[in-house]
Amino acid sequence: MEIEKYMAEAKQQVDCCLDELLAKEAQEPPTIHRAMRYSVFAGGKRVRPILVLAAGESVGGARRVLLPLACAIEMIHTYSLIHDDLPALDNDDLRRGVPTCHKVFGEAMAILAGDSLMTRCYQILTELPDVSGATRLAIVREISYATGTIDGMIGGQVVDLESEGKDIGPETLEYIHRAKTGALLAACARCGGLAGAADTRQMEALSAYGRSIGLAFQIVDDILDVTSSTKDLGKTAGKDQKMKKATYPALYGVEASRRKARELTNAAIETAREIGPRAEPLLGIAQFILRRTA
Amino acid sequence: MEIEKYMAEAKQQVDCCLDELLAKEAQEPPTIHRAMRYSVFAGGKRVRPILVLAAGESVGGARRVLLPLACAIEMIHTYSLIHDDLPALDNDDLRRGVPTCHKVFGEAMAILAGDSLMTRCYQILTELPDVSGATRLAIVREISYATGTIDGMIGGQVVDLESEGKDIGPETLEYIHRAKTGALLAACARCGGLAGAADTRQMEALSAYGRSIGLAFQIVDDILDVTSSTKDLGKTAGKDQKMKKATYPALYGVEASRRKARELTNAAIETAREIGPRAEPLLGIAQFILRRTA
Repeated sequence: MEIEKYMAEAKQQVDCCLDELLAKEAQEPPTIHRAMRYSVFAGGKRVRPILVLAAGESVGGARRVLLPLACAIEMIHTYSLIHDDLPALDNDDLRRGVPTCHKVFGEAMAILAGDSLMTRCYQILTELPDVSGATRLAIVREISYATGTIDGMIGGQVVDLESEGKDIGPETLEYIHRAKTGALLAACARCGGLAGAADTRQMEALSAYGRSIGLAFQIVDDILDVTSSTKDLGKTAGKDQKMKKATYPALYGVEASRRKARELTNAAIETAREIGPRAEPLLGIAQFILRRTA
Repeated sequence: MEIEKYMAEAKQQVDCCLDELLAKEAQEPPTIHRAMRYSVFAGGKRVRPILVLAAGESVGGARRVLLPLACAIEMIHTYSLIHDDLPALDNDDLRRGVPTCHKVFGEAMAILAGDSLMTRCYQILTELPDVSGATRLAIVREISYATGTIDGMIGGQVVDLESEGKDIGPETLEYIHRAKTGALLAACARCGGLAGAADTRQMEALSAYGRSIGLAFQIVDDILDVTSSTKDLGKTAGKDQKMKKATYPALYGVEASRRKARELTNAAIETAREIGPRAEPLLGIAQFILRRTA
């Protein structure tokens, strides 16, 4: 299995499906639909939707059925990026190498574009074709908790913001990473499993896999912020240190952080192997997350 | 039926249920939970949740079952107020007579508190006790479309923002009002009906009722902005004119606007009568919306 080929093909299908699921730019009112599309198509690697596909397919789900779910989760991820980049939060001008939503459309439209992408995500989840009503409801529940204030994405973002410039311990750092990035990545694996009708044992494996790669992903993100250039990264490099953000390299050093990311990746790969031969892309995705350079 | 008594009792129960459904202030991370509670308990009239209760009860729904649904909708309404009040949008310092969320907690936390209340709404909707999974899913769908970009709350807000200082015609004004305020008010009536297991004829009546009072509500809002003081209103009065916002009084004059609001109220009352004797609170709510002074 060539993971690069798998990911490239999946990305193309995700982009195509995102285009279908987002209102056209001409749809009234056009500004908000332009802003939503701008940020969704501003060059993401589509790690989350590809993870949904690979998790769902690992338990026998059909790609056609998994694609709208994958795209809905990419929309909620994009909402979080748009709001995180706002001047009142991380105040970032660049994301994925292009100007952030508020730099192009203004703050008001960026706030509303974020709100709209979260809302559109829930619209899509209630209408997933060929997924039972009970499963759709379970998926809405999964996503809403993964992005919520208690051990979810917003909770992690709040603690991250409040930790700037403070000395925080390993426990707080792990909370931030698990909640801010890990919870949604784990939900990708779990939702793929739900839509693919995974059994209890498979759901447990997918949850463990998701938790491991979720934390690995954020540790690699921290390392890249220290070791990469703004050009390579597509967003402002060295920003964590400048903002005095708590990171793995700051707490443990780059080498120990790399070791931790490798351990988590190996654990994820072991867990994915338990699911069986159809889980091979999950192994490749774990490797990709470890080795990525942007 | 004394509508004031009905509304006062319902409001008290809604406040009590909101308190149960929102995380405690001490819940980690505390700042976001304090901000969410601050805005939810900053003195709303609870028109939307009371409407959910009255609509659900009009078709035989039990209040105990309807209350969490009513509260979830109040949370999504509060999210929209917090984001609307932000400096980049309406830049309001006062809401319901008290400082707005961003004045107390800062812009970053206000943005995240809005996001969190929308997210919490969907969490609650997936877990409504004694409501079937199919109905919970239908309610998630209803709310997500009523608050979306196409003929929904965000769409109305976008057109409203973009119309500031411009001459707009009656069609655009009606679009803004129907989308920005009307869609969610109509969804309150419809969701109450769904949770109360309304039949098709009852759902149609509740939809028509909701649309009429939704538009009446916004026209009265516009009139109050012209005719009331900031003290009476609890928010900055005369703001629409200052911002050169399109309003009913600006387009038709105060008297014609009052007439239109009365007509819509009478239409809503007629429609509610079709539902039967249990719909009496809906009649009172329509009258309340017409006569309110803040």
